[in-house]
This record gives sequence, structure tokens and C-alpha cells, in this order.
Amino acid sequence: LSDRFESLDYDPCENSLFLKEESQQTFAHVNRMQTEKWIVMFLIGACVALIANGVVVTVDKISEWKYGRLRDVFDACSGTASDCLVQPLGLWVLGNIIPTLIGSILVVYVAPAAGGSGMAQVKCFLNGVKIPEFVRFKTLLVKIIGMICSLTGGLAVGKEGPMIHIGAIVGAGISQGQSTTCRTDLHILEDFRSDTEKRDFVSAGVAAGIAAAFGAPVGGVLLSLEEGASFWNQSLTWKVFFCSLTSVFVYNMIIGIYQGQPGDLSNSGLINLGAMADMTYLLYEIPIFLLMAVGGGLTGAIFNFLNFQLTMFRHKHITRNWARIMEVVLISAVTACVGFLLIYYVGDCQMMRDTSPQRTVQMLCSDGEYSSIATMLFQTSEKSLRDLLHDEPGTYKPLTLGTFVVAYFLLACWTCGSWIPSGQFIPGLLIGATWGRLCGIGVMLMLPGVAIDPGRYALIGAAAQLGGIVRMTISLTVILIEATGSIAFGLPIMITLIVAQWVGNWFNAGLFDVHIKLLRVPLLEWEPPPLSSHLVARSVMSHPVYTFKTTESVGTIVDILHKVTHNGFAVVSDGDIRSPLSDTPDTFGRMRGLILRSQLITLLQLKVFNESPDIDVIRAGLSIRSFRDTYPRYPSIKDVAITDQERRYTMDLAPYMNPSPYVVYMNTPFPRLFKLFRALGLRHLVVVDNRNQVVGILTRKDLAKFR
Amino acid sequence: LSDRFESLDYDPCENSLFLKEESQQTFAHVNRMQTEKWIVMFLIGACVALIANGVVVTVDKISEWKYGRLRDVFDACSGTASDCLVQPLGLWVLGNIIPTLIGSILVVYVAPAAGGSGMAQVKCFLNGVKIPEFVRFKTLLVKIIGMICSLTGGLAVGKEGPMIHIGAIVGAGISQGQSTTCRTDLHILEDFRSDTEKRDFVSAGVAAGIAAAFGAPVGGVLLSLEEGASFWNQSLTWKVFFCSLTSVFVYNMIIGIYQGQPGDLSNSGLINLGAMADMTYLLYEIPIFLLMAVGGGLTGAIFNFLNFQLTMFRHKHITRNWARIMEVVLISAVTACVGFLLIYYVGDCQMMRDTSPQRTVQMLCSDGEYSSIATMLFQTSEKSLRDLLHDEPGTYKPLTLGTFVVAYFLLACWTCGSWIPSGQFIPGLLIGATWGRLCGIGVMLMLPGVAIDPGRYALIGAAAQLGGIVRMTISLTVILIEATGSIAFGLPIMITLIVAQWVGNWFNAGLFDVHIKLLRVPLLEWEPPPLSSHLVARSVMSHPVYTFKTTESVGTIVDILHKVTHNGFAVVSDGDIRSPLSDTPDTFGRMRGLILRSQLITLLQLKVFNESPDIDVIRAGLSIRSFRDTYPRYPSIKDVAITDQERRYTMDLAPYMNPSPYVVYMNTPFPRLFKLFRALGLRHLVVVDNRNQVVGILTRKDLAKFR
Ligand SMILES: Nc1ncnc2c1ncn2[C@@H]1O[C@H](COP(=O)(O)OP(=O)(O)OP(=O)(O)O)[C@@H](O)[C@H]1O
Ligand SMILES: Nc1ncnc2c1ncn2[C@@H]1O[C@H](COP(=O)(O)OP(=O)(O)OP(=O)(O)O)[C@@H](O)[C@H]1O
Ligand SMILES: [Mg+2]
Ligand SMILES: [Mg+2]
Repeated sequence: LSDRFESLDYDPCENSLFLKEESQQTFAHVNRMQTEKWIVMFLIGACVALIANGVVVTVDKISEWKYGRLRDVFDACSGTASDCLVQPLGLWVLGNIIPTLIGSILVVYVAPAAGGSGMAQVKCFLNGVKIPEFVRFKTLLVKIIGMICSLTGGLAVGKEGPMIHIGAIVGAGISQGQSTTCRTDLHILEDFRSDTEKRDFVSAGVAAGIAAAFGAPVGGVLLSLEEGASFWNQSLTWKVFFCSLTSVFVYNMIIGIYQGQPGDLSNSGLINLGAMADMTYLLYEIPIFLLMAVGGGLTGAIFNFLNFQLTMFRHKHITRNWARIMEVVLISAVTACVGFLLIYYVGDCQMMRDTSPQRTVQMLCSDGEYSSIATMLFQTSEKSLRDLLHDEPGTYKPLTLGTFVVAYFLLACWTCGSWIPSGQFIPGLLIGATWGRLCGIGVMLMLPGVAIDPGRYALIGAAAQLGGIVRMTISLTVILIEATGSIAFGLPIMITLIVAQWVGNWFNAGLFDVHIKLLRVPLLEWEPPPLSSHLVARSVMSHPVYTFKTTESVGTIVDILHKVTHNGFAVVSDGDIRSPLSDTPDTFGRMRGLILRSQLITLLQLKVFNESPDIDVIRAGLSIRSFRDTYPRYPSIKDVAITDQERRYTMDLAPYMNPSPYVVYMNTPFPRLFKLFRALGLRHLVVVDNRNQVVGILTRKDLAKFR
Repeated sequence: LSDRFESLDYDPCENSLFLKEESQQTFAHVNRMQTEKWIVMFLIGACVALIANGVVVTVDKISEWKYGRLRDVFDACSGTASDCLVQPLGLWVLGNIIPTLIGSILVVYVAPAAGGSGMAQVKCFLNGVKIPEFVRFKTLLVKIIGMICSLTGGLAVGKEGPMIHIGAIVGAGISQGQSTTCRTDLHILEDFRSDTEKRDFVSAGVAAGIAAAFGAPVGGVLLSLEEGASFWNQSLTWKVFFCSLTSVFVYNMIIGIYQGQPGDLSNSGLINLGAMADMTYLLYEIPIFLLMAVGGGLTGAIFNFLNFQLTMFRHKHITRNWARIMEVVLISAVTACVGFLLIYYVGDCQMMRDTSPQRTVQMLCSDGEYSSIATMLFQTSEKSLRDLLHDEPGTYKPLTLGTFVVAYFLLACWTCGSWIPSGQFIPGLLIGATWGRLCGIGVMLMLPGVAIDPGRYALIGAAAQLGGIVRMTISLTVILIEATGSIAFGLPIMITLIVAQWVGNWFNAGLFDVHIKLLRVPLLEWEPPPLSSHLVARSVMSHPVYTFKTTESVGTIVDILHKVTHNGFAVVSDGDIRSPLSDTPDTFGRMRGLILRSQLITLLQLKVFNESPDIDVIRAGLSIRSFRDTYPRYPSIKDVAITDQERRYTMDLAPYMNPSPYVVYMNTPFPRLFKLFRALGLRHLVVVDNRNQVVGILTRKDLAKFR
């Protein structure tokens, strides 16, 4: 586990300042806070939707222009010598390289946290691990621009992962009423400036992101629960739901205006998979679906394995900034070339029909025909996915699909984790839809005479593949149901997802968990490892413990803060001599409370020393707000100037520490520790003996070690 | 708060016997338990589905026969003098009375816990409150039969509440591998015999019940979370999901066979609301929906208020068994008479058309016409609901709908809470659909020329009304989406539900919460009351505390168990003299552990006394199983025979107590206590001073007092 990651403070500290503040509050204040919460939820939803609108319109316009030009230059070559194709190919490569270059430069030099999909980091954040720079304003900007770049650059990526990350940042941003990056503080919503409150808004932002991306408000809520929540809180869930609802609503309204049908709200989200026609399925199809699910689980496991190896390789060898940018550029160039090769060598020519896709590309085909593979490649991935789900039987030759799926699988796997914003949902779905359609064609061949819609198999394949890669079930089921509007097909989708997950889990973890493991994040799983009751607090705790007395000398505090990196310290009684009856060898005084590094630093900065000449003035000016003002970027101990004289002063910690932290006994079994930690979102847990004397301390890292 | 209710033990006791057992277990055992869990989940799902199938087929057959006969006798009268109608009316009344009489006798005399919908009780159970006889086998039987009776008796009730209760009992039953009522013990699944494990299966059963009732697997999972869960556990959620999936699957398979289309799985659940046609809606309709939502919230609040008054009246005045039965009989007779009056005085005659409902009743109408109100009444409520959602515009006169909705509202309100199984979902939906359709007709009149489908308004009305009564949002949204198959309409449904809930909550609590409050159940809400930080453990705890020494005299134990009804006792060190330094006035010894009444009684029954002649044999024979064997009906202290000699013996409690319970300090603020209690499902929480000496104890009742 890496030491780079600190935890978030999800457990509020009820010290005397907090209690004083609360005692002055009225129910009117509680109501105002509730109202503010609902309003902020609305704003988050609306804001995420607006960003989604902006992204989708921009990407649409640019892609249309780019692929339109490409279509033209390629079609100009049809019928002529094949070396005429060099110029179009060059243009294609260029059209891919330019945006991805911009995107990756931004990511590498401005906001590295904006790279990748962000799902793994969102999961960590909601779990209680602080990811550096993850919810900054500049990360948001880079993510948005980078996402547009990677999408218009034709990479094998999707929008949903980045949308989730964007949602998280918007949630964390709007709820604070300030931006440290922009040095603005609106002096509103100050009550929400704590990790506990922020988490709620981030959950909502995540849900709104998914809701806007897939037009799936319920799916969004479930995803934010499945990946993040630990304590299911009904009133929070409603707010999250409201937020994701708003997001869909606003998105639909604006996209309706953009599409020239203002007022029509029946649109779907960013990624419109199109309503599937009334789909019935029969009992004998279930085994076929199951087989496909197994296939999805296996290929998903392979995907994750390859990506794992690749990421290891990246960590070791691609460490320079320019190398990272070069890799992205290389990927985008290769993507174009692979596409070209596919078109050149496969060149699946289809007769123009009424039911043919809207924008076809002739390429190397004769007049009156179009190249189905080129048509698939000359548009965004979502549109290809949609075509695969809805096109008539016979639109694609099996060979086309077969070569496409292999190429796209490798490209997607390579792209995932490179230094540019990228989502894995759409690539996963597209890969699955392709081989699913292939399966559908196979079933058609085996059962001639039965009317079979290959689009149905494409949907199952898509579910199987994505399920095999990301290993979510409940939220993904609902998202797919909502994105395709096919309730009747919900049951097979779910079964497929569950089986794909089982099969995949047999081999390795889901894609995001693989990345989390690679980052060595101290993530707490849902449940303690089985058969871990023989481990007790005594054997997993850290020992000795750095403690402070309730009245501690400033010098000691400063020295210890300089010496160790710990963020929490037990506060112990000062008067007590060590009890002679104590049956534990080393104790560190009688437990009185818990104080955080950030609190100590604030106290030092404000010079709340007993011997300070103006101590009464300082004390009177101290409120919970003094501590909140430095949130979320607490100063470091190095920023605190303490004179030698002050070092000899003392400080009263009792009024500022958490006087009633949860404590456990030495013989507490591991599962019990784990449940306490996980369910209540703790950061430090002090272990006491049966005289309430501190004997050890536990943090997330001590628990996450055991898997 | 009533003393009648005891808590469930959701917090496992990790005593030395437990640790010994676990240390002997291998990973193979863990895997076997996991596999068993999945299998049990499958069985629960399948079993619930089979029961649902049985009920729906039985009710269908009986209702068809009953209403067919009624249709015939009524139609025979058409055209003749109106006193010819006396005989049909008599038959109708009789046809209602007979089944409801049977049902209510069963409920009143055999299993009172089977009355009502069971939703409130399920909520309590999942919250951690033991409801007497709630998950017994005989309750299951009575619930099934009673439900068939109330449905065929033509009462204004639905199937979903009882299905949820049935699911809960099936979950609790199958997972135990034994039935105390039937005196059978299969000696399997013994690991699942604890409240903690049982709760998981009950959650799954609840989800399966909803899934089978509405064909809504996702909705089922969400409902079981929304009403029950506190700690969202991913692996449990998957299992619950699997269970509800199985339930839908099996239900569909069997109903497919029953309907002569074996293998077709695209059916919906028990309550088939029918797929709504592709429904688009426009921006200007949103305000109308909002108004309807407000209406739903208001009428829902009125419904709950009336039902609250009625229930109070019942508690006071209808206390005799025969009176309870008579009330049910009266309701069923009045239901028939009201129906008759509606038909007679409203008599909405419609021309027979192609689009007319399948089974029409002519009644007092001329030939070639049918009475739309009679058609509505002469079928089960679900079918009427379905017709209201799907019938052509113009099928019903506004007056018909208006009178029907008033009558049905009052009847449903009266029926709710009487001594027969009854669900409130379908009545709620039906009432809402009726006035919703009325609104739709109103809109049609106001906006002539615009094509408006009143069925759409009926759906919104249904959502508004049900939301206003039961005040669930997320699960209800998903259930309605799944039951009608209309994703596109999800957004307005959600908005409607949220607004209806807001409006309703302004006046009173949801229906189930009203009943819970009336039962005076110590339910723990989702969140601590606002501004409760000034309450600390010291001020809410019970004091003095009954404690036992780690080595305690048998006489003392027996006496205390006889004297008090408490279920948990702190165990304290025996050697300690009271610390002279202690700064709290009354302490009761140094905290060592927590022991439950049931454990003490088992120890007394097995005579684990230090002075017993064969104590070594007894100790060797003792295992965690000795304690589990008496689960779930622990003997009372009165069943324990202790001789005078034995009273002077002593007992070692240390190996059997929970040696590492969660404890809190005296100054712990209420919200912190509450969160600990709620998130971890505690039953007792010991309060200690800062020398770890017991000063007080807290139970659910101490916390639930503050709302
Ligand atoms: N006050 C302390 N005294 C002694 N050891 C400590 C103390 N605080 C933490 N530790 C131990 O140091 C190790 C690393 O600490 P860690 O970085 O997890 O703590 P932290 O920085 O306080 O919390 P976090 O990193 O989760 O924000 C852990 O094993 C932990 O048990
Ligand atoms: N061992 C005890 N000594 C003194 N008071 C107790 C003890 N146990 C419980 N109480 C108090 O008695 C009151 C009623 O107890 P209650 O019936 O809630 O406890 P219980 O029966 O042990 O638990 P439950 O009823 O939740 O199963 C509560 O206020 C509680 O604090
Ligand atoms: Mg640290
Ligand atoms: Mg009690």
C-alpha cells in the first residue's frame, strides 16, 4: 500500500466548538441548510447536464466535419489507382493526431489527474481516500477539453467515465461556494465545507454524470451506490436521485432545442442506444445468452489481464512526460492506420438500400454500393454501437465484424490507461456488440427459418463484454435497460451480467479494481476477509502510539508533527501516573480524545497558547469556522513559524479534540474492527486496554493490508 | 414506545466458542457456505414465484367464475323490472361475504400476524425489531389463504403487500432448514440460524415478493433497500438481486405455461399493468403533472389521516374477536352494495365497439351497449387498473369516474388495517388512475384539437396517489417503470412521486410509518433528529445498570433474570475495588463484556457451573451450536429448574460473553450514538467512564424516544 494517499475525514469531530456552534443554531437554520442542499443538488444536476450538452454538441460538430471531409477525400479516390489513397490516409492520421496531441499535452503538463476514465479514482474518493488534485477546477477544465480531444481524435474511448469524473468535480466544486484554484470565495454554503458533506455532493455528481451520459437516472443512482456508498441513507439517496433526474431533464431540454424539437423531453442521454423494438425472447435462447455471458467474462478477463500488464509496463518504462504524449499520439496514428487497413483489406461492400445507415461511405466499392466497415469507422463509437444494435440482418459480413472486433479490442485495451481522458464503457459495449452480432449471425445460420434479429444478440454481447470488463451488475443492468428502453429484455441482460461477472471474477478483478490495486490505494472492501476473526486489534494495531497530553508543550507538538507524517493523535490525561494494576506492558496514558494534524496546525497558527499575552482574545475569536477556513488545503507544519519562546508555551487540546471517538478493546476481532471502520467512515481508531489506556492505533492502511 | 417489542441480534457475538469454531474452519467451508447462500437465494426466489403463481391462478379462476355467474344473473335481469335485481345483489353480497368470512376467521383465530399488508412489519423486522409470530409457518399459510379470500371477496385490496410478507416468511423459513411449528429439523443450513443471517434472506424474500408481484426485479431490490437496509453491502445486494431475478424468471415460466405459451418469458409479473404504447410528453405537460402530484400528495395525506383515526378507533372499540370478523364481513357486504348502487345510479352505458374491454356487462343498458362501470367492478382491481391505463378515450363518462373514485377511496381506506390480508398498492394506484384519467379528460376538454391519451394521465395519477400514500420514491419509480415497461415516461413518474411525497410529508407520515407509530414500535429512523448534539450518552442512558461479575453466583443470576426483563447485561471484573480516583459518582465495575439473557439461560439449562461434579464434561461438550440450537425460540427463565444447592454454585461468564462489544464514553453526542447503533445494528450499547467503568446502558428504546 502506498503512503502517498491520505484519508478523508468522514467522521465528524464533535468538539466543544462544534457543540457551541450547534447549540446556537435553530431549526430555521436546519431548514435553510436542507433547502440549500436541494438547491445545490439541482445546480449540480443542471451543470453536469450543461457540460454534457456542450461536449456532445462540440464532439458532434467536429466529428461530423472531420469525417465528412474524410468521406469526401476517400470517395474522390474511388475508382482511381490505389496510391491515390495515401493523401486521405495522411489526412486521417493527421485528423487523429492533432486533437489527441492537444489533449495529452494538457493532461500531462496541466492536470495529470484528468487522465484515464476517473472511475477508479471516484471509487477511491467515495471510499474515503483522498486522491491528489482529483476534484480541482483545472482538472475539470482539462478533463472536458481532453475528452473532446480524445473523442474527436477517433480513439477507442467513450464519454461515460470522464462524465462521471466531471460530475464528481462539479459536485465537489459547486457545493463549496469557493474555488481555491481561482482564489474566489463566495462566502456561501460554508456549512458544506467538510469531507462528510462533500462526499454527498460528489455521490450526486457521479449519479448526474451517468444520468446525463446514458439518460439513465436510476442507473446513475445505483452506480453511485454500488461503487461508493457504504451507509445507505434514504434522505441522501433521494437527493442524489433528484440530482440525477435534474441532469437528465436539463440535458433533454437543451438537446431538444439543439435538435429543433424544443419541449420534447422524451430524448435519451448523451449515449443514445436507441429504443429496441419490442423484443421477446424464448426459453431456448437463454442457454445461448449464457454461453455469450461466459464468453464475455473470459474476454473481459483477458482485457483486464492485458491492460494490467500494459499498465505495469507504463509504470516502469513510460515515465517521461514526452514519452507519455508520444504514446498517445502513436495510439491515435495507429488507430487511423488500423482503420485504413481494415477498410482496404476487408472492404465489405453492401448494396445501397432504404434501410442502410444515413451517412454511408463508398470507399473502394463500386457505385451504388457502400463500404459497411468504412461507414462504421467514419463516425463516433456510439453511433457505430447504435448501428450494430439496430441495423437490419445482412448489413455486415461476418468477416468484417470478426476482423473489426479483434482490432478494436486491442486498440481499446491499449488506449485504456494512456494519458488522455478515456472511458471504457462504450468501447466495451462496442466490442461486445460486434461479436454479439456475430453470434446472432451464427445462430441464424444454425437455425434457418427462425426469424432472428441479430441486434438482440448484439445487445447481449455488449452487456456480456462490458460486464466482463467492469464487473458491475445492478447498476449496469439498469443503465442498459434505461439506455435501450427495453424493459422486457431486462431479465436476460441481468443474467448475462451476473454470469459474466462470475466468470470474470474467477480470473481477476474488474478493470477499475485492477487499476486501484496498481495504484496501491488503501481501499476498504465491502466485507472483511473471510476467517479473519483470529486477527485481533492487538495484532494489527500500530504500536507505539504518538500521543499528546491534554495540556501539551508547544515544542513537543511541533517536534512530533515534524517528525512523523501521521494525521491523527490520541490525546491522553496528563495527571495520571501509569496504573500499577495495568495488565498490558506498554500503555501511553488514559484515552481522552483524538486530535487531527490539521487541527493542531490551525491551533499553532492561531497561537492558542496558554501563555500567550492575548490568549483570552484569541480564545474568544476561535470558532469552528477558524478550522473550516483552511479546508480543504490545510497548511503544512513547515508553514508554521514558532519562536523559541513559544516552544516553551503550552497548549490546551481538550476543547479542540474529538472528546468521544470510537475506541475498541485489544481483543476485538478483525471483522468487528473492519465493520466499524467501514460503516462509519473512520480515519483513526484508537485501541485501549481495559483501563481505557491507549495501547495502539489503527488506520485504514492497517486494515486494508489484509485482503 | 411499547415494551412488547424485543430487538433482534444483528451484531454477532464473537465469544471464545465462536472463535474456536472459526479457527477450525477452512476456506472450503467458507466456499460451501457461499454456495449454500446462492442456492438458498434461488430457492427463495423460486418458492415465492410458485406461491405467486398459485395465488394468481387461484384468484383468477375463482374470480372469473364468480364474476361470470354475477354477469349472467345481472344480464338476465336487463330489460325486466328493477326488483329482479334483488336476487343478483344478494348473490353478489354473498359472494363477497363467504370468502372474506373464511379469511378473517383464519386471521383472527389462527394467525393475527397475517392481517393487514405486512409492509410495516417487514420494515420493523429489517430495522431490527422482533415482531411476534411474524415469520411463522402458520402465518404463511394463513396469509396465502387469507389473501386469496380477500381478493376473491372483492375487497378493495391488492396483492403486493401480502406478497412482500409472504416473501419475508419464505426467506426466513427456507434459510433455516427447520420449522419449529412443524417440529421438523432437516439439520442443514445450521450456519444460517442467527438473526444476522436471517435478515439477509428476509431482504431477499421481500425483493422476490415485489419482483413476482410487479414483474419488477430491480424495483424489488430497491424496495428492500429503501425500506430495510442500513448498511449497503454489495455482495448481499447481488444475492438479493439474483433472488428477485429468479422469482421473476420462474413466475414467467410457469405463467407462460398456464397461458399456453410455454417458453415465452417476456411476460410481466402478477400485476400486469400492460406495456404503455410509446409515450412522448411535452414540456407544457410537466406543470399539469406537478399539479396532479400535489393532488396526490394531498389526497394521500387525507387517506393516511382517515386511516389513522380509523385505526385508533379500532384499537379502542373493536377489540373482540367476533367484532373484528364482523367488521370484515360488513366491509365486504358494503363493498358489494356500493358497487351495486354505483351501477344502478350511474349506469354509464357505452356502445359496444371493437376496442371495448373483453368481458363487458350489459346490466341495465340496452342491447348493443354495455355498462362501463359494471364492467369495471366485475373484475379484479388489477384488471380495472389496467383498463384505466389503456382504454380508448371516451370509454368512461367523467361522472362514472368521479363517483367511482370517491366510493373506492373510502372503501380502500376502511379496508386498510382490518383483520384480513390486504395490500394498499393496487387500491392506491386504482384510485389515482381513476382521477388521473379524469384529469386527462379535463385536459382534453381544455385543449381541444390536441391528441391526448387519458391513459397517460391515469398513470401519472396512479403514481401521484400511491406516492402520496406510501411515500416511497426510488423503488416505486422503478416498480412503475418496470410494471408498465415505459422507460421514456420514467422522468415524469419520478418527478410526480417526489412532489407527492414532499406535499404529503408536509401533513403526516407515510401509511406504513403511521401504522408503525400506532404500534409504538421502537423503530430507528435513518438519521438522528437534527440539533440533537446537546444530548449526550450520559443523559440518555439507563442507570443503574444490572451487571454480572465474570464469575457470578448462580443465585444472583437467576434472581436478576427473574426480576428484570432486560436482555443484555454488562459483565464486569470481579476483583476490582472501585477506583478511588473515579470522577463519576456511580459506577458498576470495570467493563469486561456483554452477555445476553438467552446465553445465560442456555448456560443455566446446561448447568455450566464451576462446582458441578461433571463440569469438565459439560465444558467439553459446549460449543457455539449449544447456543444456536435454541434459536429462534429461546426458553424463558421460568423453564429453568435450579435447585437450592445449585443456587450457591458459581458460573464463569467470561468465555461466553461478547468480550469486545462496542462501548461509548459518557460525553458521546447523540448523533454519534445513533449512527453507531443504526449502522451496525446494535442491541445494547454500554456507556463507560474514562476508566472503562460501566456507568450506563443504552438500547434501541432509549434512542428511538427522540424523534
Ligand atoms: N498517532 C500515531 N502514532 C503511531 N502510529 C500511528 C499514528 N497514526 C497512525 N499511525 C500508524 O502509522 C501507519 C501509517 O499511518 P497513516 O498514514 O495511515 O496514518 P494517517 O496519515 O494518520 O492517516 P491517513 O493516511 O489514513 O490519512 C499506520 O500503520 C498507522 O497505524
Ligand atoms: N442490563 C440493564 N441494566 C439496566 N437497565 C437496562 C439494562 N438493559 C436495558 N436496560 C434499560 O431498560 C430499558 C428497557 O430495556 P429494553 O427492553 O429496551 O432492553 P432489552 O430487552 O435488553 O432489549 P430489547 O428490548 O431491545 O431486546 C431501556 O431504557 C434500557 O436502557
Ligand atoms: Mg498518512
Ligand atoms: Mg426488552
